[in-house]
Amino acid sequence: MWRVFMFSYKHRVRYYETDKMGVAHHSSFVYWFENARVEFLRDLGIDYKDIENAGYNLAVVEINGRFLKPVFYDELISIKVKASRFDGKYAKFDYYVFNEKSETVVKGCTKHFVVDRELKRVKLPDVFLNKIKEKLQERE
Amino acid sequence: MWRVFMFSYKHRVRYYETDKMGVAHHSSFVYWFENARVEFLRDLGIDYKDIENAGYNLAVVEINGRFLKPVFYDELISIKVKASRFDGKYAKFDYYVFNEKSETVVKGCTKHFVVDRELKRVKLPDVFLNKIKEKLQERE
Amino acid sequence: MWRVFMFSYKHRVRYYETDKMGVAHHSSFVYWFENARVEFLRDLGIDYKDIENAGYNLAVVEINGRFLKPVFYDELISIKVKASRFDGKYAKFDYYVFNEKSETVVKGCTKHFVVDRELKRVKLPDVFLNKIKEKLQERE
Amino acid sequence: MWRVFMFSYKHRVRYYETDKMGVAHHSSFVYWFENARVEFLRDLGIDYKDIENAGYNLAVVEINGRFLKPVFYDELISIKVKASRFDGKYAKFDYYVFNEKSETVVKGCTKHFVVDRELKRVKLPDVFLNKIKEKLQERE
Repeated sequence: MWRVFMFSYKHRVRYYETDKMGVAHHSSFVYWFENARVEFLRDLGIDYKDIENAGYNLAVVEINGRFLKPVFYDELISIKVKASRFDGKYAKFDYYVFNEKSETVVKGCTKHFVVDRELKRVKLPDVFLNKIKEKLQERE
Repeated sequence: MWRVFMFSYKHRVRYYETDKMGVAHHSSFVYWFENARVEFLRDLGIDYKDIENAGYNLAVVEINGRFLKPVFYDELISIKVKASRFDGKYAKFDYYVFNEKSETVVKGCTKHFVVDRELKRVKLPDVFLNKIKEKLQERE
Repeated sequence: MWRVFMFSYKHRVRYYETDKMGVAHHSSFVYWFENARVEFLRDLGIDYKDIENAGYNLAVVEINGRFLKPVFYDELISIKVKASRFDGKYAKFDYYVFNEKSETVVKGCTKHFVVDRELKRVKLPDVFLNKIKEKLQERE
Repeated sequence: MWRVFMFSYKHRVRYYETDKMGVAHHSSFVYWFENARVEFLRDLGIDYKDIENAGYNLAVVEINGRFLKPVFYDELISIKVKASRFDGKYAKFDYYVFNEKSETVVKGCTKHFVVDRELKRVKLPDVFLNKIKEKLQERE
């Protein structure tokens, strides 16, 4: 089951992501992680938009990024994301960014609380988690 | 009256605003214009937050930027903004960005419609425009 | 020939692109235009990276955006780009952004000077323009 | 000595920093930390520009942010930064972001290696560290 609980998202490094050191500015990883996470959820059968329309959000409560190698303009990088935990109240995602040479360039994680529209901690309805379970069963 | 209808906002060019050409990426002007416009309104006695809390927004319907000279890292630039028009339904702001040598580096404008929370065009209540008029009279 | 001189780039509107009005912040168009332009050039056989490695840049000297309709989170928008002019010294690109209902949501253009590493105006070597010509001939 | 090795930077939360949850997007902390760090160094007598012109950079090798409370539009936040370590090869900065009610809203750190223009690890010349020492002695 674990292996399918993983997703890879491709991103082309943009000129506006670079800074005058000539490489991608370290802020970029936040956006890469978000893109990978949202597409991962979509792949698991959940549109983040639907979570939000139902009155919930996965608020980011912590983010961590380690920059192992510079990332260059126009590189087609892969962001691998896995859910190391995702119950109805809390989620943790781990990320590994690879360059075209398959070198790990960034590692990191995000931690999330499920919150309602008033940003209070709540539990995500089972319907969303069940969707993931179904999707994973399909793939087994 | 015209002269006071103008405001100058200072901004330090940040590393994350530069790109690998070694100068500020052209996207930065959008943020500089927004900062200058919001502080200009504050100087005229209007918190943009209050406009929004009252149910209104100054939606940007057009933006234009002309980049005359490169803008360098760590320069302390001045963004001059004036309201070339601001009635209750429509506003146009003009912007002139100067570097430390007082050279004009960017010129541009933004055009705005007043909209409500459903993004429909409406008229801003007179209370906001009257605040501006009072402020301008004080300064004369 | 004109029809092939056009390119369409798809983009998923991201959460970080939205603002508290609930729609994409107007700054986003700058990045959409850049992505579309760079992929358009790639489609014409030119990697922007190669232009830069040869010592040249297409410096943006003007940008214009008109926001016709709000753009919503998670919409899959199409950015159509065409080169209304592109000689060795100057380029103008026109952009039309469409939402999923095929409504035009943003229109705009960028104007560019070809510059060298010292940001002086120069002429792009014919090798780059010839590549485009070849590509267009292939498609006729 | 420790107390002076600390700096506070003020920032007005911008509309473009918010997202459709109605609060500052978590990516903003990267920029707040950078602004606070660079102004902290300036306050210690070092222009980051001078470090770079001398051929060095403080490359970010790790960043961590914990988001304790939502940060709202137009709040005037304070970013406190201290150097928990800063020798010629490695630096670690700690950050504490406070809202107008003096509540801690974000905590985090950045870790840096000193690198040269080829992004190789090197040692920062003593002249920069001596400047800091002098500045700190002045204040004692």
